[in-house]
Amino acid sequence: MSETRLDVLAIGDAVVDVIAIADDRFLAEEKLVKGSMQVLDAEGATRLYAHMKQARETSGGSAANTMAGVAALGARAGFVGQVARDQLGDIFAHDIRALGVEFVTPPKPDGLPTGRCLILVTPDAQRTMNTFRGAAHELCAQALDPEQIRGAAMLYLEAYLWRSEGPRSAMKQAMAIAREAGRRIAFTLSDIACIVPHRADFMALIEAGEIDLLFANEAEISALADEPDRETAIAAIQDKVPLLVVTCGSEGATAIERGRRVSVPIARIGSGVVDTTGAGDLFAAGFLVGQVRGRSLEESLHIGSIAAAEVISHFGARPESNLVALVEEHVGGAGGPAS
Amino acid sequence: MSETRLDVLAIGDAVVDVIAIADDRFLAEEKLVKGSMQVLDAEGATRLYAHMKQARETSGGSAANTMAGVAALGARAGFVGQVARDQLGDIFAHDIRALGVEFVTPPKPDGLPTGRCLILVTPDAQRTMNTFRGAAHELCAQALDPEQIRGAAMLYLEAYLWRSEGPRSAMKQAMAIAREAGRRIAFTLSDIACIVPHRADFMALIEAGEIDLLFANEAEISALADEPDRETAIAAIQDKVPLLVVTCGSEGATAIERGRRVSVPIARIGSGVVDTTGAGDLFAAGFLVGQVRGRSLEESLHIGSIAAAEVISHFGARPESNLVALVEEHVGGAGGPAS
Repeated sequence: MSETRLDVLAIGDAVVDVIAIADDRFLAEEKLVKGSMQVLDAEGATRLYAHMKQARETSGGSAANTMAGVAALGARAGFVGQVARDQLGDIFAHDIRALGVEFVTPPKPDGLPTGRCLILVTPDAQRTMNTFRGAAHELCAQALDPEQIRGAAMLYLEAYLWRSEGPRSAMKQAMAIAREAGRRIAFTLSDIACIVPHRADFMALIEAGEIDLLFANEAEISALADEPDRETAIAAIQDKVPLLVVTCGSEGATAIERGRRVSVPIARIGSGVVDTTGAGDLFAAGFLVGQVRGRSLEESLHIGSIAAAEVISHFGARPESNLVALVEEHVGGAGGPAS
Repeated sequence: MSETRLDVLAIGDAVVDVIAIADDRFLAEEKLVKGSMQVLDAEGATRLYAHMKQARETSGGSAANTMAGVAALGARAGFVGQVARDQLGDIFAHDIRALGVEFVTPPKPDGLPTGRCLILVTPDAQRTMNTFRGAAHELCAQALDPEQIRGAAMLYLEAYLWRSEGPRSAMKQAMAIAREAGRRIAFTLSDIACIVPHRADFMALIEAGEIDLLFANEAEISALADEPDRETAIAAIQDKVPLLVVTCGSEGATAIERGRRVSVPIARIGSGVVDTTGAGDLFAAGFLVGQVRGRSLEESLHIGSIAAAEVISHFGARPESNLVALVEEHVGGAGGPAS
C-alpha cells in the first residue's frame, strides 16, 4: 500500500447546529420525541426555529464532529461535505479548517442554503435533533477528490447521508476508490430512522464485505438485525463484519473483533453531563484514532469513552478541552505512530 | 404623560458575536490590544476570522445585550437596529425576539451583510473585540417608529453607533421625539474609541440637558472629561447630568444623583469569571430596570452588579440564568410596578 496523507477521511452532513434550551412541555407542544432525530423541510424548520428560545450556533454534523475529534486527538483528518456559498457555509468551513481538518469540498453557489440542525437540550442533558439538511444533501460524486480518498488510511461514512440519492451514489463511488486503494472502510449507522428504509442496502454492503468497521448504538444494531434484543442483534451481525463497535448509552461500549469481545464502562470528566449531543460522534473519533495508531481494542474503546465524556460535559458537539492531554492522563501512552 | 408600552427602548448595533478562545501570543501576532475594541473593514474581518480557532456564534451588540438583560429581568424592552436580509440577520432577529424584546426594524434587502463582532477570549477571561459593523451602521432615521419611541419610558442610546452619520442622525431624531413625549433619555459612552472623536458632541448634548442618565466606565469618564484622574473626571461631569453611573471594573460601581453618591462592590455568582464580555451591558440592564421599577439608587446598582456577575460566569454576552430569581435572592423584593 502507498503512504497515507490522512488517517481518516469522512463523508457526511455539513450542517451548523443551532442549540437552545427547552423543557419537556416545549417538546410535547412541538410533538417532538425526546432523544430522537427528525428531518424538517424549510417550512418546518422556520416554524420550529421561531418557537425556540435564544440559541447559540456551532458547526456540527455527525461525521464532521467525529473528524473534529480525530484532529483534536492529534491524528490527520479530512472531511467531505456540501455547504452553500452563504454565511453558515462560511462558518462551517472556517470551523472545521480551524481545527486542522482538511476540507476542500467547494461550496455550491446555487441551490439550497447550508443545512442546519435545530437542537433542543432539555434539563436532563438529552438532545432532540431537528435537521434541515439543505445543501448537505446536494453532495454529488463530482465533489469527490479521488486522490484524497486514496491517500486516507480509513474512509468513514455516515448513514445520515445515505437517505438521499446524490450523496448515496457519491459514497458508493468513494467506497470503490478506497477499496481499490486497499484502504479500510468504516460506517456508522447514525440513527434508527436511517436504517429502517435502507436495511437491505446496508445488509448487502455488510454481506459483500464492503464494511471493515461498523459503528452502531443499541437501537441501531437492533434495527439492522431486525432483532429487538440487543445481544441477539449483536450475535446476528458480529460475524459478518471484521470489527463491530456498539455503544450502549450509560452502560458503556463493546467491540467485537473476529469473535473476541471487549467492553468498557462509560467515563466521566468534569462536573457532570450538560448536553449529550455529540457523544456517539466523539466516541467514534476516539475509537478510530486508537485504531489508526495501532492501539488495542481495549485502548481504542477507552479513548472513545474519554472523548465522549469530554463532549457531554459542555454544550455543543465538538471538543473544547485538550483531548490529547486527557487521553494521556486517562489511557496513558502516546500510542504508536499513525499508520 | 401618556401610558407607556415599553420600559426601555434601545437603539444600537445589531451584530452577531463570533467567540473564540485565544492566547496572549495570538493577540500579539494579530497586533491586538487586550480588552480593547477595534473596528475592522470586510478584508480585515476576513483575515482575522481565518486565523481564529473554531468559534461559537451568539447574538450580541452592546445595547441589544442590555435589552436582553432588561427583558430577562422582567421589564418591557424594545430594540432598534439594522440587520441585512441574510442568515446572520435572521439569527439576530430570532434571538432578540425569543427573549421577548420587541424588534420591528425591517432587515435591509441590499447593502452590507449583517454586522459581526469577532471576540477573542483569553484564559484570564478578558475579551478583545473586533467589530465588522456591516449593516448595523446603515441604520437611518427612516427605520424609526415614532410611536414606539413615544411609548417607551426610557430611550437608551449607545455611543458605538454615534460614529456613523446615518445612525447618528437617527439617534438625534429619536432623542427629539422622546424629549417631546416627556420620556427619559439614557446614554452609554460605550468605548473610549467612540468618545475621543466626538467629545465636543457629547459634551454639547450633556450641557444642553439632553441626557438624563449617563453610563460610563473609568476610562470613558476620563476621556469625556479629558481628565486622567477618575475622581477629577467624575467631579467635572456629575453636576451636568441628573444621574451619572460609573462602573469601575473589579472595584464595583458608583452612581451620583444630584450630589448624592452611592457605591456598590462587584457581585460574584457561580464558580468564577469565564468571559467578561457583556459585563457593562448587563450592569446597565440591571440599573435601568431598577430605575424603571422605582427602586433606590442602591438597589439599582445592586441589581446591575447581579446581572453583570451572571453574564461573566459563562461564555457569551447575554444572560443564561433566571435573572428575576437571582435578583429576588440577592437584592430581595419584586420592586414596584414598571413605570
